[in-house]
Parts: sequence; structure tokens; C-alpha cells
Amino acid sequence: MSQTKAKSSVGIVEPQSAYFDEPLLLACGRELAGYELVYECYGQLNAEASNAVLICHALSGNHHAAGYHSEDDRKPGWWDAYIGPGKPIDTERFFVVCLNNLGGCHGSTGPTSINPDTGKPWGPDFPPLRVRDWVHSQKRLAERLGITCWAAVIGGSLGGMQAMRWALEYPDMLQHCVVIASAMKLSAQNIAFNEIARHAIQSDPDFADGHYLEQDSVPAQGLGLARMVGHITYLSDDAMAQKFGRDLRRGTLDQGDENSVEFQVQSYLRYQGSQFSNRFDANTYILMTRALDYFDLAREYGDDPVEAFRRAKCSFLVISFSTDWRFSPQRSREIVDALIAADRPVSYCEIEAHEGHDAFLLPLPRYMEVFDAYMQRVGVSD
Amino acid sequence: MSQTKAKSSVGIVEPQSAYFDEPLLLACGRELAGYELVYECYGQLNAEASNAVLICHALSGNHHAAGYHSEDDRKPGWWDAYIGPGKPIDTERFFVVCLNNLGGCHGSTGPTSINPDTGKPWGPDFPPLRVRDWVHSQKRLAERLGITCWAAVIGGSLGGMQAMRWALEYPDMLQHCVVIASAMKLSAQNIAFNEIARHAIQSDPDFADGHYLEQDSVPAQGLGLARMVGHITYLSDDAMAQKFGRDLRRGTLDQGDENSVEFQVQSYLRYQGSQFSNRFDANTYILMTRALDYFDLAREYGDDPVEAFRRAKCSFLVISFSTDWRFSPQRSREIVDALIAADRPVSYCEIEAHEGHDAFLLPLPRYMEVFDAYMQRVGVSD
Repeated sequence: MSQTKAKSSVGIVEPQSAYFDEPLLLACGRELAGYELVYECYGQLNAEASNAVLICHALSGNHHAAGYHSEDDRKPGWWDAYIGPGKPIDTERFFVVCLNNLGGCHGSTGPTSINPDTGKPWGPDFPPLRVRDWVHSQKRLAERLGITCWAAVIGGSLGGMQAMRWALEYPDMLQHCVVIASAMKLSAQNIAFNEIARHAIQSDPDFADGHYLEQDSVPAQGLGLARMVGHITYLSDDAMAQKFGRDLRRGTLDQGDENSVEFQVQSYLRYQGSQFSNRFDANTYILMTRALDYFDLAREYGDDPVEAFRRAKCSFLVISFSTDWRFSPQRSREIVDALIAADRPVSYCEIEAHEGHDAFLLPLPRYMEVFDAYMQRVGVSD
Repeated sequence: MSQTKAKSSVGIVEPQSAYFDEPLLLACGRELAGYELVYECYGQLNAEASNAVLICHALSGNHHAAGYHSEDDRKPGWWDAYIGPGKPIDTERFFVVCLNNLGGCHGSTGPTSINPDTGKPWGPDFPPLRVRDWVHSQKRLAERLGITCWAAVIGGSLGGMQAMRWALEYPDMLQHCVVIASAMKLSAQNIAFNEIARHAIQSDPDFADGHYLEQDSVPAQGLGLARMVGHITYLSDDAMAQKFGRDLRRGTLDQGDENSVEFQVQSYLRYQGSQFSNRFDANTYILMTRALDYFDLAREYGDDPVEAFRRAKCSFLVISFSTDWRFSPQRSREIVDALIAADRPVSYCEIEAHEGHDAFLLPLPRYMEVFDAYMQRVGVSD
């Protein structure tokens, strides 16, 4: 961590952990007897506990949203551009909480944890989760931290789904809901891409029907492929063109041996895929993509999003990105339309950005301005 | 084949085959000593041999473009909607030739053929091919059939690339060039999707570094996955939504056991994937996608498509489809712009269609009208 970094950084942070021994009834009907949640906090909770902000992570995210884990740490948390002193989620004003979701693979109870009933890793037997299960478990963490109402619940992509579900499940427990690059439900195309990702994992012989940990193996090829599919769909065609064009990594097109020739995008994708399989758990990836696929905001409200949002009491900020084709601006406008029809206060901004879905993670000036302006309006002492 | 079908059908057709023993020098620098091409013909070649039309197939196509192979045949050739008596490619006027490309797996010499030097299947050792190699081998077939100039060379997608390459390699050998849903080169995103397809195949243990035939195995999982990826990208998001929505195949979302629940799109994709792996060869799929990736119309013309098209002497019809995101209308407009700048006669039509890239195979009224009107202008006795 350099001095420059440190200036607007939350600095060195230490993950914390909370164990909950009260059983959690899940949407699937099964019950989790107890579970651990790993989380990080940035900033100070004020005396009224009115300045707390919850950050909900997306598919492959975790609790490490900002700061560094050590002096030698080269990369900050995944949303460090937006969380810190003077940043949109200003840690001089807010007490920021980010947790690794239940079912995750970065410390919270999930498929890699030991199932107390068997003494073996849960693996594929970990109960399927829905977005609401995360919201329910996050509520317990709020209680544990002495937070009765969030100043804001914020999330991008799958995180935005959690933020919206918070507004419906616990309408009195949040003042603001920030939904970035998200959707009320996935399109068939989105589900299809997730299906390919799962199929790639499940058809890797090293997956062993999900029991790979017991066999001391990892379905690296399948998980790598899944990540490659995801990666392409998170980038826009334009962004890929700008990033790689058709540049060759080595060799020339004229050579007879094709194995000596590669496009940059190919080696990049293979690298991304193999890196991901080192740091992520395959069962967790399956679990998370299924939670995405099954999310349907309005299903229990007669499939009427207006009816659903009538339950909400908070204000909303909805942000989309022009070249995001996985969670297109059209999906965000549907959220906004439903909020307006339900008479809920909503601000909406479509950011011109060529980076596709990935834009929500990046420090883009316009996005930062809009986000910052909105967060300035979030009161911390009401 | 029903009576109704028969009315506008070319009827029962029989594939033919031609063996060429003159060595073919390939773009990669290697030489193919001899090769066989399987093809079908529909209609009658006229006395001047001036009414011949060449159909170039796409990635997974073959020589069986129209008609039926037997009375019991339930499905006609892949472009039967466009080839036949009274259809846009009217077999009462034209003599239509469609071949399985070199490197294919439907009868022409390719990776599944026996390498005379080893007595074993070529497998992964089959020489890599470029679009120009196909054009060169197609020219020899033309000569064999007594055709010195095609009335038209026609192709969609990868087939359109062949049609364009024909116009540059043998400018005196075609009167018209019809380029449907194609591009002068792939985008990085397109290459990335192909890379995922290849990676899926190559990481299937049954692929055995491409020598699966010798081991009497088939990389069915990998090839199935590759097809699933392709299939999604050939359909528009809208088309998938219309086809499947988020309908469940069975089970309900509330059940705890996720394996009892599937979205229709999931079972559809798995079915498509497994069907494809029964009828297509994995090494051929790799070879074909590489030919796609490496195609770059203007590379040898100083990367200037205008300079490239100045070689052409034929007239062009370019067609694109509004929701085709794999070969978007923008790519077709680039072809048209270059043709205009090169002073070549060109007609262009962007067809409103919600089917994505797959639209080029489908009998859409507007597409049919435009195609038919253009083909009426194609002279057969000049």
C-alpha cells in the first residue's frame, strides 16, 4: 500500500466474523442450524447507529470491498474506487459494512465449510439459496452490529437484486436503496449463459458430482470455462475491441502451425479462467448463478412489480450503463417505471460507458459524480 | 417427404463426389496431395454453363442445402426455404451447387478422413485451412463441372466470407456475390466466443489431444458445450425470450431440490448440445472456427477494404438482420461502405427480424422478397 493510495483509502482492514446459532429457515424449506458470516467494516458507526451502509456483493465478490489486508497488499478491495474518505461512499460520514454472502467461499458458511452432520464439506449438499435468504442473514448481522435501519443498502448486479429485496422484505430497515446494473429478473439469454457455466463445471470429470473436495481435486477446467463465458458477457464488444482488437500475442497468421499463433484475447481469457479457478469454489459458483437465475422480484406479488414496490418505503437510485448487454439499461428502466408507478421516489441515470456490465466496478467520472451527488443526500442522523 | 413439400421442392437428391489428385497448396504453406469433395446439384446446367450458382455453407453446414435424401426423410436440406422451383434461388432457372467444404465432416476430405501417409484418421493433424483454401478447392470443382463463371456465389455468415473471397481471388469467375449476415473480419468478442468453444472441446478428456477417433471416443461434453455457446450467440435475446421466456420445464421454484427444477432454456440447450455432438466432428469444429477467426478480407491489401474490393468485378447484394449481434448490421454496412468507395455496384438491405444471426436460415417474408427480387436480376445467359 503506497502513500498515495493511503490518502483516500480506508487503509489496512481486518475481516471480522460473526457466528449465528439461531436456525435460519431458507426459501427452499430447509433449515440451516447455524452459520458464520465474514465481514469488513469501514468508518465509524455513529451514536444513533444511523450512518450504516450495507454493500451487497455480486456473483464472484466477497466481503473485501475496500482497503488493504496488509502493508504488502498490492490490490485493494473490489470497490475501493467508491468506498473511502471523500469517495461516494464516504467513510468519514458512513459506517460501511460488507459481508461475504452465505454460501460463499471466502469465509462465510458455504459449500466448502464442514457440514456438522457429516463431518465432511457440504459440497453440493449445501442448501440452495435465494436472494431473500441472503437478505435475511444480512438482517441478523445488522442486529448483531446494533443497526436497526441502514442509511443505504447498495449493490451492483446480483448485489442490486439483494438491495431491492431488502426494500421489500424489511421496508422499515433502510432509508435508501441503490441498484446498479441490475434487473428484476434475468432474461432467457442470461439464464442460458449461466446454464453453460454450470454445465461446463458439472461436466468436468474433476467435479466428481460436486464432491471434489473430498477427493482433493478441483474442477479447474470447468470453472475456468465458466469464468471465460462470464467474462465475455461482462464486457461490451467495443470494450473488447479496444482492449485487444485482433492483436496477435505471438506468431503470424501465415504460419502453418496454428498452435504457435494466438490472439491476445485467447491468452487473456485462458489466464482469467485459470486464475479464477484458483480462487473460487465451483459449488459456490453454481449456487450463486442459481440464485441469480431464480431471482424474480415480483413473483410473489402476482408478477406485478408495481405491487411489489408498493411495499417499499425508501428512496431509490437506479444506475445503468449504455453498453451493458448482460443487464441492459432497458432492465433498469423497467425498475424505474415500476417505482414511478408505485409512487416511490427514484433517481435514475444511464451512464455512457463502453465497458459493458463491468463498468459498475470501474472508476468512471460521470458514474462517480452521480453516485456521489446522490450519497450526499443520504442523511445520517434522521 | 409429403406431397405438399414436394411441390416447391427439388425432391429427392443424391450427393455426388469428386476426387482431385492435383496437390492443393494451402495458405498455411502445407500441401494436400489429393482430396475428395462431396456436393449436391439442383436444377440443370444450361448449354452455355452460365446459370450456375454456388452456395457456400457456414460453420456447421454441409452440402445438403435442399431437397430430401429419401422418401422417408423428414427434414429437408438446411436452406430448402430458399432453393427450389419458384424460390429465390430458383432451380427452374439456376443450376445450384453446394459442397461440403474441405476439412468438413460430411464426406469431403477432413480430419475424420484417413491420412494416406499414416493410415490413421488425420484428426488434429489435418492442415489448418483458411477461407481462401475453400475458394481454391471450390474453383477446381467448378472446372470439373464445366463452369467457367458462376452466375452467383452466395453465402451466409462464414459462407459470406467465402463469397467475398471468391470476388477477390477469381474476379472473372462470378457475376454476382451475395453476402448475408457476414463480416470482413470477426470482432474480438466473436473470437472470444470461438475460443471458449475450442477450449471446451480441448479440455474434454475424451478429446485426447484430438486423437479421439483412434481411441474410439468422442468429446461429446466439450462439443456439446461448444454448440451451446454458439447457439446462444446465434439467437437474439428477444428470440430467446419469445421462445422460452422463463418457463419451467418441470417442478416449481419453491422446492428445495434444485435438480428437480429446470428452465426450458436449460433442457433445450443441453438437448441441442448433445444432438450436435452426435452429428459433428470436434476437430472439424475447431478447424472451422479457426478459419472464421483468421478471416481478414483486407489484410493482404494493406488492411484497406476499399483497395481489396477494387479487385472485384461482380455486383454485390449484402443483407443483414436487425437483431444479429454476432454479425451485426454494422459489420455489413462496413462491407457496403467499402464497396461504394471502391465503385462496385452494391444493393444492401437490413431486414427487421427478431431471430438474431439464425435469421439468415429462416423463411422470413421480407428477406425472401429482397433476395428473390435480386436473384431475378441475375442473368443466366450473359
